Amino acid sequence: MRTAISCLLLAALLNISLPCAASSPNVVVIFCDDLGYGDLACFGHPTIATPNLDRMASEGQRWTEFYVAACVCTPSRAALQTGRYPIRSGMCSNNRRVLFPDSTGGLPASEITIGQMLKAQGYSTHAIGKWHLGHLPQYLPTSHGYDSYFGIPYSNDMDAVSDSPKGKARFWNPEIEYWNVPLMRGEQIVERPADQHTITRRYTEEAVKLIRENRQHPFFIYLAHNLPHVPLFASKEFTGTSRRGLYGDVIEEIDWSVGQILETLRAEGLDGNTMVVFTSDNGPWLTFDAHGGSAGLLRDGKGSTWEGGMREPTIFWWPGRITPSVVREMGSTLDLLPTIAAITGASAPSDRLLDGYDLAPTLFHNLPSPRESMFYYHGQEVFAVRHGMFKAHFKTKTSYSGQRDAEVHDPPLLFHLGHDPSEKYDIAQEHSHAIDTIHQLKVEHESTIEQVENQLDKR
Amino acid sequence: MRTAISCLLLAALLNISLPCAASSPNVVVIFCDDLGYGDLACFGHPTIATPNLDRMASEGQRWTEFYVAACVCTPSRAALQTGRYPIRSGMCSNNRRVLFPDSTGGLPASEITIGQMLKAQGYSTHAIGKWHLGHLPQYLPTSHGYDSYFGIPYSNDMDAVSDSPKGKARFWNPEIEYWNVPLMRGEQIVERPADQHTITRRYTEEAVKLIRENRQHPFFIYLAHNLPHVPLFASKEFTGTSRRGLYGDVIEEIDWSVGQILETLRAEGLDGNTMVVFTSDNGPWLTFDAHGGSAGLLRDGKGSTWEGGMREPTIFWWPGRITPSVVREMGSTLDLLPTIAAITGASAPSDRLLDGYDLAPTLFHNLPSPRESMFYYHGQEVFAVRHGMFKAHFKTKTSYSGQRDAEVHDPPLLFHLGHDPSEKYDIAQEHSHAIDTIHQLKVEHESTIEQVENQLDKR
Repeated sequence: MRTAISCLLLAALLNISLPCAASSPNVVVIFCDDLGYGDLACFGHPTIATPNLDRMASEGQRWTEFYVAACVCTPSRAALQTGRYPIRSGMCSNNRRVLFPDSTGGLPASEITIGQMLKAQGYSTHAIGKWHLGHLPQYLPTSHGYDSYFGIPYSNDMDAVSDSPKGKARFWNPEIEYWNVPLMRGEQIVERPADQHTITRRYTEEAVKLIRENRQHPFFIYLAHNLPHVPLFASKEFTGTSRRGLYGDVIEEIDWSVGQILETLRAEGLDGNTMVVFTSDNGPWLTFDAHGGSAGLLRDGKGSTWEGGMREPTIFWWPGRITPSVVREMGSTLDLLPTIAAITGASAPSDRLLDGYDLAPTLFHNLPSPRESMFYYHGQEVFAVRHGMFKAHFKTKTSYSGQRDAEVHDPPLLFHLGHDPSEKYDIAQEHSHAIDTIHQLKVEHESTIEQVENQLDKR
Repeated sequence: MRTAISCLLLAALLNISLPCAASSPNVVVIFCDDLGYGDLACFGHPTIATPNLDRMASEGQRWTEFYVAACVCTPSRAALQTGRYPIRSGMCSNNRRVLFPDSTGGLPASEITIGQMLKAQGYSTHAIGKWHLGHLPQYLPTSHGYDSYFGIPYSNDMDAVSDSPKGKARFWNPEIEYWNVPLMRGEQIVERPADQHTITRRYTEEAVKLIRENRQHPFFIYLAHNLPHVPLFASKEFTGTSRRGLYGDVIEEIDWSVGQILETLRAEGLDGNTMVVFTSDNGPWLTFDAHGGSAGLLRDGKGSTWEGGMREPTIFWWPGRITPSVVREMGSTLDLLPTIAAITGASAPSDRLLDGYDLAPTLFHNLPSPRESMFYYHGQEVFAVRHGMFKAHFKTKTSYSGQRDAEVHDPPLLFHLGHDPSEKYDIAQEHSHAIDTIHQLKVEHESTIEQVENQLDKR
């Protein structure tokens, strides 16, 4: 800390740029909602223009095999914040997939978030946007290690007003008044219904303001956009401007937002001392037709443990530290906490099991990722496991499709994600050894799971 | 011509680099076989590494809506060479989709190829690789305006040897001897069966040699790889090296080849005076499992008039002339002849209907593409038409699926390719006006088609 401040102060006093990169770097995590693997131009989308994210990718690392730890919102966010599979914090459920406005549970006080870890290290810590880890005061960001919070505490399609259009019709021509979602500052509701047209812009302005205010002090900003989750809203400047329709307008406004943040970091001379991560919470919500995104060549989307549900378009950026490249290695939002601990010198919790790895070897030295496996949770259950290039599905279920029960696979389906990223060609028969290995990993992993109070079922 | 030669001669005499870009630029067209829209890293593939094509794209224009004029090989190539829908040259058929070794037809002498057009302009013209516009002497490149030819004259899976494994088994562990395909130089067979393991490397060496030999003389090189058409072969250096398996090895060798060509142009000081175009002939051959490619988020593949069959990953490169960007405008291989005519000063044929447009406004001035429509031929029939963002399907058929008859759609299926690039959500009911416009375009286009001798049915 001291080193960082003196370095930055010195730079400020002399009005020069100093290489303070090694000490107390700032961290910005930009987290989207329901963004598909294929929805950015640099991940192959033909009609969505994302010049700022494309530039971020070309200056940084574009990770093609980066996973979230759950295929829906609340558990995915719990995993990012804690570096632990959400089963360990009680933040996933087979009954209620996420927290709802009538939920009384949330992320337990005993869990340690990235914000809390960095606050203990002297960082200024800020959460902006969707939280979805509990909206009662004891669960809000300000109770979980964040100095400030500004955002909608859960999904933007909750609190639907009863006399608004029914079913999907509500979403095709959305009006702000159809959803009575609150906008909060700290623990106070400051606007209701939140004006969702301007929400991306206002989150961005908040982030830019915080970067400027903290330019001489290490900071962590967790900017979790409420979009492109349906209902889709864009500001006047973006509405009707994209070739991809409203969904594209929304992504292009988020791209603009990324541009604003990176430009602010550059303008403040912080780009050499700030790591920015861009990713999303789960795959695209395919049942919403053109209002949902695209997983590109990956199979299925949000709510499923096929790749499209849990692999996200991810970019790491830190000019001068991260060597620009395409990274075809495994990583996960679970790894953010340990990685951020390592680069900031903060202490990752040592009194509990963490499921993340420090990605520094890959980020800074282009070495193989320390992550070799991924468990694909559906609710409280491991539906699939990836180890190396092999992924075995023990159960599959397409959520939101009306499929009631998961399909059980015995022997499991097996895919080689390198040769067959779209999970089309089952090779279980030819590779039973891979299934054996994966089965053992699953048993070992499950043996580490302890019974905890379920937070999502509480109301 | 005179200008170009004197400029280049002067540069050579003085051993300096002169900005000769405006006069008689060289042109290299690199044309793959069955490469899918989603098979390059810069078009979103997660496990195929294409650093040379990624760099080419970042230095040039990556076109996301670039079409071929047929969903299979022979007619697609006829369109590229002539700037005309293959129905005009008799180079498509409802009976035999492409030319086979027993075919006696080929591109008629009356057709004017890019090679022929540029030869008349004083260019040195060279065809390398797959021709597939007739393998009898009167149809070969050397009879169609090319000074030289080195390649396999048709598909690399033809001339199957009768005692080789049957069906697809032949392809899973391919041996060169299973296909008795000839390798030709000029009109002579110089190797049979062609050693397909080294074919990409040898085509590349031929191109590099020709660039060096012609450094002081305007040249056109048409380099049509036989791969990644099945059977897949890579050289020893690439076999087993890619995360995508053999298919990835093959693409990564083609990527290496592109790197060799661009590096040679740079080393010879020709990069500022050479336009290089990279694309492919049709979509991926999906029935070949992991030996076939991926169309990314596009629907279907080779042999179909869904987008995956006819939209190709395309890059234009000309440092200093082409402003780096992602181009979300319509273009086609039909446009190469008129575009190349415009930049070289050659005379495009004026005594016949051309179906191409000069793309110069988009390439050099970032203006909208002059192309506003595309007709999707299946054999001799227009199955679908795109106009602006709307695409109407009058008939659909998935080739290679066993589907015998095309499905007729009346009213046609209608998709908005901007909002819905995967052609999932039929919007015919809401946009009957678009169908009316497209129907009229189809009638007008079909009224320009004259009866000609069919070349593909001849044997």
